[in-house]
Amino acid sequence: MRTIKLTIEYDGTNYAGWQVQSNGLAIQQVVENALEKILGSQVRIYSSGRTDAGVHAKGMVATFRTHREHPLSAFSDGVNSHLPSDIAVRKAEEAAPDFDPRREAKGKHYRYTILNTPRRSPLCRLYVWHLKGCLDIAAMREAALLMVGEKDFAAFRTSGCAARTTVREIFSVDISREGELILIDVKGSGFLRNMVRIMVGTLVEVGEGKTPIVAIPALFNGKKDATAGMTAPPQGLSLIEVYY
Amino acid sequence: MRTIKLTIEYDGTNYAGWQVQSNGLAIQQVVENALEKILGSQVRIYSSGRTDAGVHAKGMVATFRTHREHPLSAFSDGVNSHLPSDIAVRKAEEAAPDFDPRREAKGKHYRYTILNTPRRSPLCRLYVWHLKGCLDIAAMREAALLMVGEKDFAAFRTSGCAARTTVREIFSVDISREGELILIDVKGSGFLRNMVRIMVGTLVEVGEGKTPIVAIPALFNGKKDATAGMTAPPQGLSLIEVYY
Repeated sequence: MRTIKLTIEYDGTNYAGWQVQSNGLAIQQVVENALEKILGSQVRIYSSGRTDAGVHAKGMVATFRTHREHPLSAFSDGVNSHLPSDIAVRKAEEAAPDFDPRREAKGKHYRYTILNTPRRSPLCRLYVWHLKGCLDIAAMREAALLMVGEKDFAAFRTSGCAARTTVREIFSVDISREGELILIDVKGSGFLRNMVRIMVGTLVEVGEGKTPIVAIPALFNGKKDATAGMTAPPQGLSLIEVYY
Repeated sequence: MRTIKLTIEYDGTNYAGWQVQSNGLAIQQVVENALEKILGSQVRIYSSGRTDAGVHAKGMVATFRTHREHPLSAFSDGVNSHLPSDIAVRKAEEAAPDFDPRREAKGKHYRYTILNTPRRSPLCRLYVWHLKGCLDIAAMREAALLMVGEKDFAAFRTSGCAARTTVREIFSVDISREGELILIDVKGSGFLRNMVRIMVGTLVEVGEGKTPIVAIPALFNGKKDATAGMTAPPQGLSLIEVYY
């Protein structure tokens, strides 16, 4: 039995998220259907985690098992010929037979992109959160530093999050400007549902002067009634890489 | 009478080009319709030039004349509220009453983007030409230098081009790599129809080893039967800026 590791890129604009859901088409489903055309039988893929509706990925990792002896290119180029233009396998590799893409992930890199201009930009509209007002980047960087480390992120998850524990380790939160864009790169061991988007929403409220930096530490007191900032919209978020 | 200068950004994916045509919706038409909603009467806009179907723009320049006393923000934010998400006015300014965006243009900057990877990329699919094979960038740079200067670009225009003269001045052709992308920045005094796309197609044929560098100078001999390379597809091309 072979275990094949796929690195998948997708534009999440037109999907209900990675995981198969009742409401709308899931990316996982589309990839499974394309694999089925190559393998000739149904297959289930297992991923490093989910992404929400409208969130993108440059490097989602997913695996499947097969007895078939196809060359690896059948699972990249071959599968791509059955995938729509907004989903593609970027890499297919052999993995250890018992490789578990979720449990063995050592960390993930998410990037959130803000377009910070007075007027919207048609050319990047699908991949940014457009914010017109002035943002205090220095304050946002200071607040971001307070989010780094092993902390209780209970305040940074959506009500639908079913995780048993809420302690996660954030390795780094880097904020940089590239012309009209503000890039927020978040790396961590693991993430609760909507955690990056709530972290970004909180940082933006700091940048807008609505939340003082001194209010950040209290968000990590583990109390359930601690409420962080708003949830940034999905289209600005991309899963860049999963580390193993 | 006021003359208003608009700087317009658009994603050309879903349009038949800038100029009003019989086949499909033109960007010009959509902008004129939005302006009409602000001004209350029909208006005709005049641009620095056209872009073909599927070509994008970061900084198309267009003007219109009006007696109305609306503040400038009505022609940027106001018009944007009537434009679809793939078109936006990025700037509205007062111009000299007799300002002519086409005749007074001192030059234009176009950028062509190539995605040079074995497999396609869903996240930039709308804005690149995907080429899988190896490209000799050094050879492309050498060929690009031979395109700089005041030359007869008769071989670099589409059969439908109606320009009376075919001599144009190219200021620079810069080729750079940014990760998986190859950016070709072309600046010049003026351009024939499809000229940038044929220049890029020719450079790619040099990069692929199909056209030798020594064949480039002969393309500028002004003969009508001199045939340059293929026409690169439209989605990789963006009009970045018009200089005045």
